This record gives sequence, C-alpha cells and structure tokens, in this order.
Amino acid sequence: MNRPLTYKDAGVDLDAADRAKRSLAPLLDAASDENTLSGLGAFGGLYAVPGGMAEPVLVASADGVGTKLKVAFAAGRHDTIGQDLVNHCVNDILVQGARPLFFLDYLATGALDEEVVPEVVGGVARACSDNRCVLLGGETAEMPDFYAAGEYDLAGFVVGVVEREGILDGSAVQVGDRLVAIRSSGLHTNGFTLARTLVFERMGLGIDDPFPGEDATVAEVLLRVHRSYLGPVRPLLAAGSLRAMAHVTGGGIEGNLPRVLPKGMSARIDCASWNPPNVFRRLGDGGGMAPGEMYRVFNMGVGMILVVAPEFEAGVLKSLGHEGWPIGEVVEGDRVALVGAG
Amino acid sequence: MNRPLTYKDAGVDLDAADRAKRSLAPLLDAASDENTLSGLGAFGGLYAVPGGMAEPVLVASADGVGTKLKVAFAAGRHDTIGQDLVNHCVNDILVQGARPLFFLDYLATGALDEEVVPEVVGGVARACSDNRCVLLGGETAEMPDFYAAGEYDLAGFVVGVVEREGILDGSAVQVGDRLVAIRSSGLHTNGFTLARTLVFERMGLGIDDPFPGEDATVAEVLLRVHRSYLGPVRPLLAAGSLRAMAHVTGGGIEGNLPRVLPKGMSARIDCASWNPPNVFRRLGDGGGMAPGEMYRVFNMGVGMILVVAPEFEAGVLKSLGHEGWPIGEVVEGDRVALVGAG
Repeated sequence: MNRPLTYKDAGVDLDAADRAKRSLAPLLDAASDENTLSGLGAFGGLYAVPGGMAEPVLVASADGVGTKLKVAFAAGRHDTIGQDLVNHCVNDILVQGARPLFFLDYLATGALDEEVVPEVVGGVARACSDNRCVLLGGETAEMPDFYAAGEYDLAGFVVGVVEREGILDGSAVQVGDRLVAIRSSGLHTNGFTLARTLVFERMGLGIDDPFPGEDATVAEVLLRVHRSYLGPVRPLLAAGSLRAMAHVTGGGIEGNLPRVLPKGMSARIDCASWNPPNVFRRLGDGGGMAPGEMYRVFNMGVGMILVVAPEFEAGVLKSLGHEGWPIGEVVEGDRVALVGAG
Repeated sequence: MNRPLTYKDAGVDLDAADRAKRSLAPLLDAASDENTLSGLGAFGGLYAVPGGMAEPVLVASADGVGTKLKVAFAAGRHDTIGQDLVNHCVNDILVQGARPLFFLDYLATGALDEEVVPEVVGGVARACSDNRCVLLGGETAEMPDFYAAGEYDLAGFVVGVVEREGILDGSAVQVGDRLVAIRSSGLHTNGFTLARTLVFERMGLGIDDPFPGEDATVAEVLLRVHRSYLGPVRPLLAAGSLRAMAHVTGGGIEGNLPRVLPKGMSARIDCASWNPPNVFRRLGDGGGMAPGEMYRVFNMGVGMILVVAPEFEAGVLKSLGHEGWPIGEVVEGDRVALVGAG
C-alpha cells in the first residue's frame, strides 16, 4: 500500500533548503555595496549602474571550476573552491579592461549538506569581498540522482564594467609589442582531469601524501587558490599602459594568447625566460607527459600575459616587481611559437 | 610501461571542445543586438548599457533546470531544455519590472557530445531570441567522472535592466489589492524529482507511454516548455498597472507569493477559482499525494501572480484575456491561506 508521498520522500527537503538559504544571508550582506538595492529572497538581484561614466559597457563571463572539485572532495576541503571560481571569472573580464561589479553562483548537489554549502558559498563571498565585487545572488539546487554522494558542481557568473573607450579587445596590438608575464599561483583551475590522472595514477600519490619537492601535501599543492590579477593589473590599466591581456586558462599560452591578437599577428614566447614551478615539473616528469603537451594544457607558471608597447615595458615590469618578467614579443604569423618548450 | 600521456588520454578532447564551440558561433551571432560589442572567443561578453535611461538598475538572476533534465535524457530530447532555462530566468527578473538584456549559459557534461551540445545551446539561443535577449556567452565544461554517460547539467544567468523608479519590490502593495493569476504551461521547471517518482514509480508509466487524459506522451507532457511571461506582462508594466508580481516556482504559491508582500501582509487564494490542469490532477491522484503537499511543490496551473490595485483589476484581466483570472486578494496576516486546496 502506498502511503501519501511528500517532496521529502522523493529526496528533496524544502525545509533544509530554506535553512541553508538563510544561513547564506550574512554572507550576502557582507559582500554588498552602495549600489546593491536588493536583499536575500528577492527573485533577482538589483544593482544600480555606477554613475559618472561616459559610455559604460558591461562585461560578463560564466565559468566553472572543472574537476578541481574532485580534489576538494577527496581532501574534504570546501572553503577555497569558491575563491578559485570568483578569481577565475574576475580575471576573464579583467583582460578586457573591466572591473567587477557583481557575481552570482550556481551550486548544484545531490543532497544539500548544511555544513558544506555555507563553506562553499563562504569561499565565494570571501573572494567577492577581496575583489570588491558584490555577491548579488545565486542558486543552490538540490538534484537527487544527479551528483554522487558528497559531490557538487559549482559555476559562477560575473558582471563588470568598463568605459567604452577603455575596452581592451586586442585591436591596438602591433608587431613588436612586448609580452610581459605575471606568475600564476599554481595549477589554477585548468587541466585537473589530466593532473589527477598524473598525480593519483601515474605518480601513485594519495591526497594526504607529501608532494615531492614541496613542504606541502598533495591536497595543498593541487588546491592552491587560483589568484586574482585585479590588484597588480588595475594600476596598469588606470595608467593606460596595456594594449591587451590574456588569461592563461584551458589550452595554455597557445590556446589563449591568440584570442587577443589581431589577425596575421602571433607571438614568440621565450620559454627559457622562466622556470616552470615545481608542480609542473613533477607532473611532467613523474607522469611521463610530452613537454609540448604540458604547455598545451597547463599555465606552466604563467597566469596572465600583458601586451605592452615597447616604451611602456620597463614601467610595467617595475610596477609588477618580482611577479612579472619579459616573456616574448608580438610577431607576424598565425601560430604561437613556444621557443624552448621541448 | 607508461606511454607519454596526453590530455585526450585523460578523457578531455580539446579539439572536440574547439569544434563544439565553433558550432555554437552562428547561434550567438543570431542572438545579438546593437548593444552587443563582442564576438565568440572573447574572454568576456561586452554589452553597452542602454542609453536614454535616467537611473538604470541591473537585475540579475541565476538558475538551473533541476531534474527536468532527467526527463530530457530519458526522452533523448535536448532542444527544449534551454528554453525552460531562459524563460525561467527571464520571468525571475520580470517580476521586479526588468526586461532582459543578455544571458549566459553554463553547460557541464562528462564527455562533449558534438550533436547534443548544439541542440541544448540551440534551445537557449532560440529562447533568447524569443525574449529579445542577447546570448552573450557561456561555458561548456567537459568533466569526466562527474556526470553519468549521456548526462549534463545546465545553468544560466540573465541580466536585465529597469528604471530605478520602476522597480517592483512589493513595497507598494496594500491590503485589499487584488491578485490576478496567469496560467502556467505545465510543470515548468519545478518539482521534477517528485514528479518523476510519481509518474515513473507510483503510476508505473514509461517515457513514451500515452499520458492519461491527454493526447500526448509522458515525455511530451513532462517536457512542456516553461513559458515566458514577458509578452503578456510588458504592456501591463508599461501602463503602470502592477504593484508586484510573483513567479510561482519551487515552493509553489505559498513559497513564492510572500517574497513580494510587505511584512504583516499575506494573501487569501481562492482555489475554487480554477481547475488545476490534467497533469497536476493525475500526479496527485495517481501518485497518492496529499493535496496540500501538491500545492507546496507544484504551480498547479498558476505560473505567475500579479498584485494589482483594485481599480486596475478589470483592465489587467481584459489585457490578459483567457490567460488570466482573479485568484484572491492581499490580506493582513503572515501566512498564505489556500482556501479550498484540500
């Protein structure tokens, strides 16, 4: 005999969802600003277009964190993955000259965990605050039979703003422009399906093992937070020192730098100009990766590449300090040359 | 012996990803407008803030389609789920008085299917076009070991705009205001975990079976597209006829109407004012659901509720035609009363 069915019987607990949402309220409050016109519970988040701009252009980007999540699950660490997400999105609009205004997240899970959800969203809120960006809203979806127990997916959306005349779209780039690298903080959020295969299968390491050549565990090395480049780049943008920027994400330097170069132009990258950090060298050696393939997947220590007119190069390098170095130049051609990548 | 590993060996095919992305280019082109300043391949999408507004306020919302996706998978039908997503998001900002400007999607899957991805995103693009909203960008993520074979998750993010003085935030609502319902097109995108249990387990139906009481299959009934209310509601907004609006999503009327009512006010809903459509009656009867629980999960045929000053009610009903009916009124109190819901 079938007893009357409730939503909870089917695997969805609306009361738990309400409690989880209420627990997020302080996080949203903490990450709001004077342009934020809405509170928790509104259908949509309200954000006033900043005044005092001549021709404001919105810049929006959507992204996820990929299978870096699998490492977070294995490590039982859920408080940094939101930072990865926000910083990644902020960098993606920064390269067009935009500063972030607000962010929304999408968190989908099989069963709402009332401890994990605030940890994840707490990381999102902290990174929003660090980037002076409002956490305007988001969606927490409970989808039974969709995600494995203890797993979730996390995606995010950022909206920023730039003056129309300040948009960096690559059209100003010229042959002979200098390329300046800014160091990455680790694997960032790309190549994790491969990285996990290399670390856990080829190298035979466990999540809590010491990572070879580092005073840190495998979990700590793999979960290092994808950094935001807003801090070092904003003064360069304000000074008008940049002609273009590329965020080195999936596809590596070869896959991302051409996205901001005009047709007929390409780049020569001097791979002897830096030593890839330990994590990349260990993955390559220990995993038996072909070096060219490593550069096609991972950032190899280069998180952002700035395209700079020759006369600005010295100033840009000085402003970046130890984080930046000259990595190559813009040349004629249609294919990025990674000189010395092996 | 380990042969050198490539990214493809680990389950990620960057070339297939490139091909999938290129196949989406015409979809993005078709859904752009004169404010769209970016093309495919840009890190972020560029959208000029529309001119001619006094105090433009952005309204943003993120959402997914929940486990309605499981029905799409079972039916092998991927071209309508994107419409559900866009329309849901558009409705969520419409209730605050906003018209949509642009949309971004997040599609995550275990292995990119070069036929399914364009079908899904094609539905997103079609709905964007129907809502005069630009598909500004998105992310297609390949996450092996994350999603079951043939499955994916889909989330989206809409940004709209409203004049600051035109924001509907519920503060104008008064006791005695009339409530006007607009019919839904079916289950929309909520309650699918429960609906699937009821249909496939309790009622014992298969995806291709005829749905009882309808000239349509189970798949066709369950996948009916979540409609957009932009068309019927825009003229009412323009005329200043509305004091508030609630989109009836997860949590039903009881869960959503209070979101737009001031503290101390609630609503009396006359459940005798309409007959819930066949699909809701069959789910309730065939599934052995308590009627009160049905109203707490499903829209029961009411997709949107408009809050209208008494003197505007007749005009609003005339404008809506057969789609709208008087469903109740705003009263003092703190709990929505569903009179006659059983």
